[in-house]
Amino acid sequence: MAPVLILMGSQSDWPVMQHAAQMLKDLGVEWRAEVVSAHRTPDLLKTTMEQAEQDGVPVVIAGAGGAAHLPGMLAAFTAIPVLGVPVPSKQLKGLDSLLSIVQMPKGVAVGTLAVGPAGAANAGLLAAQIIGSFNVDVRQRVHAFREQQREKVMNGPKLELPES
Amino acid sequence: MAPVLILMGSQSDWPVMQHAAQMLKDLGVEWRAEVVSAHRTPDLLKTTMEQAEQDGVPVVIAGAGGAAHLPGMLAAFTAIPVLGVPVPSKQLKGLDSLLSIVQMPKGVAVGTLAVGPAGAANAGLLAAQIIGSFNVDVRQRVHAFREQQREKVMNGPKLELPES
Amino acid sequence: MAPVLILMGSQSDWPVMQHAAQMLKDLGVEWRAEVVSAHRTPDLLKTTMEQAEQDGVPVVIAGAGGAAHLPGMLAAFTAIPVLGVPVPSKQLKGLDSLLSIVQMPKGVAVGTLAVGPAGAANAGLLAAQIIGSFNVDVRQRVHAFREQQREKVMNGPKLELPES
Amino acid sequence: MAPVLILMGSQSDWPVMQHAAQMLKDLGVEWRAEVVSAHRTPDLLKTTMEQAEQDGVPVVIAGAGGAAHLPGMLAAFTAIPVLGVPVPSKQLKGLDSLLSIVQMPKGVAVGTLAVGPAGAANAGLLAAQIIGSFNVDVRQRVHAFREQQREKVMNGPKLELPES
Amino acid sequence: MAPVLILMGSQSDWPVMQHAAQMLKDLGVEWRAEVVSAHRTPDLLKTTMEQAEQDGVPVVIAGAGGAAHLPGMLAAFTAIPVLGVPVPSKQLKGLDSLLSIVQMPKGVAVGTLAVGPAGAANAGLLAAQIIGSFNVDVRQRVHAFREQQREKVMNGPKLELPES
Amino acid sequence: MAPVLILMGSQSDWPVMQHAAQMLKDLGVEWRAEVVSAHRTPDLLKTTMEQAEQDGVPVVIAGAGGAAHLPGMLAAFTAIPVLGVPVPSKQLKGLDSLLSIVQMPKGVAVGTLAVGPAGAANAGLLAAQIIGSFNVDVRQRVHAFREQQREKVMNGPKLELPES
Amino acid sequence: MAPVLILMGSQSDWPVMQHAAQMLKDLGVEWRAEVVSAHRTPDLLKTTMEQAEQDGVPVVIAGAGGAAHLPGMLAAFTAIPVLGVPVPSKQLKGLDSLLSIVQMPKGVAVGTLAVGPAGAANAGLLAAQIIGSFNVDVRQRVHAFREQQREKVMNGPKLELPES
Amino acid sequence: MAPVLILMGSQSDWPVMQHAAQMLKDLGVEWRAEVVSAHRTPDLLKTTMEQAEQDGVPVVIAGAGGAAHLPGMLAAFTAIPVLGVPVPSKQLKGLDSLLSIVQMPKGVAVGTLAVGPAGAANAGLLAAQIIGSFNVDVRQRVHAFREQQREKVMNGPKLELPES
Repeated sequence: MAPVLILMGSQSDWPVMQHAAQMLKDLGVEWRAEVVSAHRTPDLLKTTMEQAEQDGVPVVIAGAGGAAHLPGMLAAFTAIPVLGVPVPSKQLKGLDSLLSIVQMPKGVAVGTLAVGPAGAANAGLLAAQIIGSFNVDVRQRVHAFREQQREKVMNGPKLELPES
Repeated sequence: MAPVLILMGSQSDWPVMQHAAQMLKDLGVEWRAEVVSAHRTPDLLKTTMEQAEQDGVPVVIAGAGGAAHLPGMLAAFTAIPVLGVPVPSKQLKGLDSLLSIVQMPKGVAVGTLAVGPAGAANAGLLAAQIIGSFNVDVRQRVHAFREQQREKVMNGPKLELPES
Repeated sequence: MAPVLILMGSQSDWPVMQHAAQMLKDLGVEWRAEVVSAHRTPDLLKTTMEQAEQDGVPVVIAGAGGAAHLPGMLAAFTAIPVLGVPVPSKQLKGLDSLLSIVQMPKGVAVGTLAVGPAGAANAGLLAAQIIGSFNVDVRQRVHAFREQQREKVMNGPKLELPES
Repeated sequence: MAPVLILMGSQSDWPVMQHAAQMLKDLGVEWRAEVVSAHRTPDLLKTTMEQAEQDGVPVVIAGAGGAAHLPGMLAAFTAIPVLGVPVPSKQLKGLDSLLSIVQMPKGVAVGTLAVGPAGAANAGLLAAQIIGSFNVDVRQRVHAFREQQREKVMNGPKLELPES
Repeated sequence: MAPVLILMGSQSDWPVMQHAAQMLKDLGVEWRAEVVSAHRTPDLLKTTMEQAEQDGVPVVIAGAGGAAHLPGMLAAFTAIPVLGVPVPSKQLKGLDSLLSIVQMPKGVAVGTLAVGPAGAANAGLLAAQIIGSFNVDVRQRVHAFREQQREKVMNGPKLELPES
Repeated sequence: MAPVLILMGSQSDWPVMQHAAQMLKDLGVEWRAEVVSAHRTPDLLKTTMEQAEQDGVPVVIAGAGGAAHLPGMLAAFTAIPVLGVPVPSKQLKGLDSLLSIVQMPKGVAVGTLAVGPAGAANAGLLAAQIIGSFNVDVRQRVHAFREQQREKVMNGPKLELPES
Repeated sequence: MAPVLILMGSQSDWPVMQHAAQMLKDLGVEWRAEVVSAHRTPDLLKTTMEQAEQDGVPVVIAGAGGAAHLPGMLAAFTAIPVLGVPVPSKQLKGLDSLLSIVQMPKGVAVGTLAVGPAGAANAGLLAAQIIGSFNVDVRQRVHAFREQQREKVMNGPKLELPES
Repeated sequence: MAPVLILMGSQSDWPVMQHAAQMLKDLGVEWRAEVVSAHRTPDLLKTTMEQAEQDGVPVVIAGAGGAAHLPGMLAAFTAIPVLGVPVPSKQLKGLDSLLSIVQMPKGVAVGTLAVGPAGAANAGLLAAQIIGSFNVDVRQRVHAFREQQREKVMNGPKLELPES
């Protein structure tokens, strides 16, 4: 199976999007990350998706900010499932990114995650869950990750008021 | 493979959520729909997801409105990928539904679609794409659906001003 | 000079977008309208813009709703000025359409008008003003239109309270 | 009477939620605080509420951020009154937290307070008022707290412009 | 015990607020409803709350719309717990009502419910839960109501696509 | 004529509200500032307004943040014109303050200014304009202030790009 | 004293703005209403305000919708106090109108009322209060209006649940 | 051809608006920048636009923040195409600026760009594109700029996870 493909509209999105890569790595799923700008390199949208289909990429994760067109445009060029991550914008705090990604019209779908690093990490997790639907090893690593999370909550420190 | 499971918080969500079912049917993917309320039948969350894992359900689609907790809570109980559909709310027009579903914290992911029927249809489409990542027949039906959409655009009527 | 090109993401956008055509017609500027969907016919984006550049189209007007990617994607494929019209969406009332069109990242620009029919009409007007920057006849018709508007305000009926 | 139970979705919510604990302490009401995550420890929701009912907990205070499901899910598992505190989220400033908590569907109720520390403090205050409905001592301490607040306003420093 | 007091800013709020009364009636809790306007009858705020304290009213439910000051101002005059219901406003759909009620500063608390009839019904439910913290009969009726809700979900009709 | 009365909900509002005082001082209008909290000192609302009417206060300026009830409640107790200043709130940036002040129901009016220091300064300016409607001296100082503003714009430095 | 001047950006704003006129009439204050469009008749802004100053107009009420520039531009041309009424817009429900009117920069002030008819009526009321600051008759009519409102609340019908 | 005219409401807008100037300079288009305040120097609106028409200015770029009236008011006084840049406001982050500029009523148009520096740069770019519609040299420089952007994306560094 080919690595999950993580695409983003700009080099500057990497500090957010690397949380997707890290989560995939933690779950033992291969990934590859590239910058493809819907607006600055529109010709790459189609060729990148055609190559991805040929390579057998199972899931595409795409992040962009502001009038974020990358996830939807990639989805328009492929039948591979596309997950979208709204990268926070400076002024409107990612509300523009979120609406630009999630409000896709009927017929082309993007599975959208939360704004920012948590959403990027969850895109990695959801990609692993998708792969896990057909791959027992990955599914078990997802279950193990869940169990770890649970234990971290259970074993947290006691909550006390600071001494005044 | 078990049918895609379509769950919703209330009987009254069906007019929206049936667009997911219709899309799956159009793409030749089996589905099953049930009402499971996060708030009114919380005990069902876990048992429904355990049964789904046993049955081999590949994708869960969950729709709810307002303070919509169903998709996120189902995701908390399973490693099956969960897609969320924000059902429009009467007063706040689904902005509450959208934020309640998409803004999941790191560690439990919901792939969120647009508010309303278009989002429900796209949840069906994305579920088919996920299955299509590992099933050539379904993937080909997705490609055929895309081609139909394209042709419908290409063959639309001429755009003219109404006679005044 | 080639006609102004009016593009929209869906046949269903025409009731809004025809206000652009009507305004251009009223100002004596040629126009041509077509459906090009960023998501359903993504291959047409580039070819349509290449043809427009060859034809000498002076301005492109593009309207779309929801996660509206058409204006920005057209702008990515051409140096012709692109004006964007946010078509109202059913649930979020066009706030999503507006942010998806106006919040373009640095390097690809869309001159955005108001949500809905008034914005479409103003896209036609602004296109005529752009042409008028280099075409005295069109500029004069814009001035005449302004004068008509002014007179309509000046000659309105007296404002009176309804008899109770 | 058992202590008021203060629950939160994450250790990182404690700096906000401790304002509830501090207010309860100031009003002479016992409290106990724990982390219970709706998403990471969903099994704890029911058992925690069953234990609370057995213990005779009079009020539950629950805080969470983003797609905040904890207060509503706790309310789904108990007849104890649940008060919800929207913890500010990084990107959307707690608007998501607020809507996810307050917009509960008919049949399961969460009494929601303001976003952030003031809301947490007021959750403590409202819990004390609820207890005070049936406990004269607590009610008198609430009255005394009100009187203190009033006096602090009355005895504030004179408001003057800074010397320029 | 005195009846739960349901107050509202205007006669026109009754179609929303009667859902609180109906829920209380269904749960076997006495109620009394009156119009008290924070803005048009400000003198009544204090006297109404003083009387309520004398009468032993256990909970006050207050609904208002727009710049909704009634719940917060009642809370300022009493130690009885106050629950607030944002009544939908014509233009801003109750977002103004919600923020005006929920965003109370530290020191005076209003437990806020959802915008509109569902919020009003839940105010009645939460009032019953508060009373139920100290009254076994009411608590049992809340539990029975929950069970009824659960059964209604369990016994709903089968979800099928309309015949095409 | 009595001084303009500047009231605010909390000592912490003074850094914003002093811009009203400064503007009044600059325009030669007397002012007096006090803390009166709608929620913490509700009894003062009526007495403060009764005293203001007796004293002949021409305008009241009131600032508050969050669920800001002070301006509207003062307006409920007096026929003196009340100007409202939304003080920025920490989480929601004053959108809550703005809607809580401006969206008054028919029958009690607050003339609302912008969120934050600019709004406070403009409240001082508008108060002076109101007084100036009947006081030639003040009106002339308003005109002079306007002229100063105009000159400052006219005589600004040349706008140049920074040397690269 | 000259009549209060009610201006609006379009004939179509009169159904909203006539509530200002009606309120003034009810309070025995003279008014005059005209259409002056900031955008379609910009030359009228200055001449209308110069005439108003000469006539001794005590207050200007201005209503407009969408990118509502009329109130602020009138205020830029006069020292007469200007009250602004946000007329609801079709798509964004007047949120655009509200922000365009209220968020004036320091140095030019508009006292803004609520969106829609209630805001228009309150603009009439606030204009009367301003006049009443210097005119005992008008002030007394304001007090009488308040008393009427109070009585209407006090004498409303009993609130009862509909028979089921 | 006269330089593109860059106008802004305040000296303090220059750090944002200089991005328009820089982009024009990079594209070899002459520009001139001035402060013209819609509110503080309203008389300049008309004279500035009349002069611009006489000079043959091809495009006007106007930036302002808050209740931003400058772009729309300039457009009211000229047939030259006007591009608007929403300057971020301190409290509402430019949402007010955006809506005040973009939501123009039918009959007077402003082509609006994104909030902040990116929008200012894009206003410069769009102005160059407008000039380029009739000037081959400028159009070629726009194409070259696009190619540069493309290459910068293509030649970016490899994306790697930080070593842990």
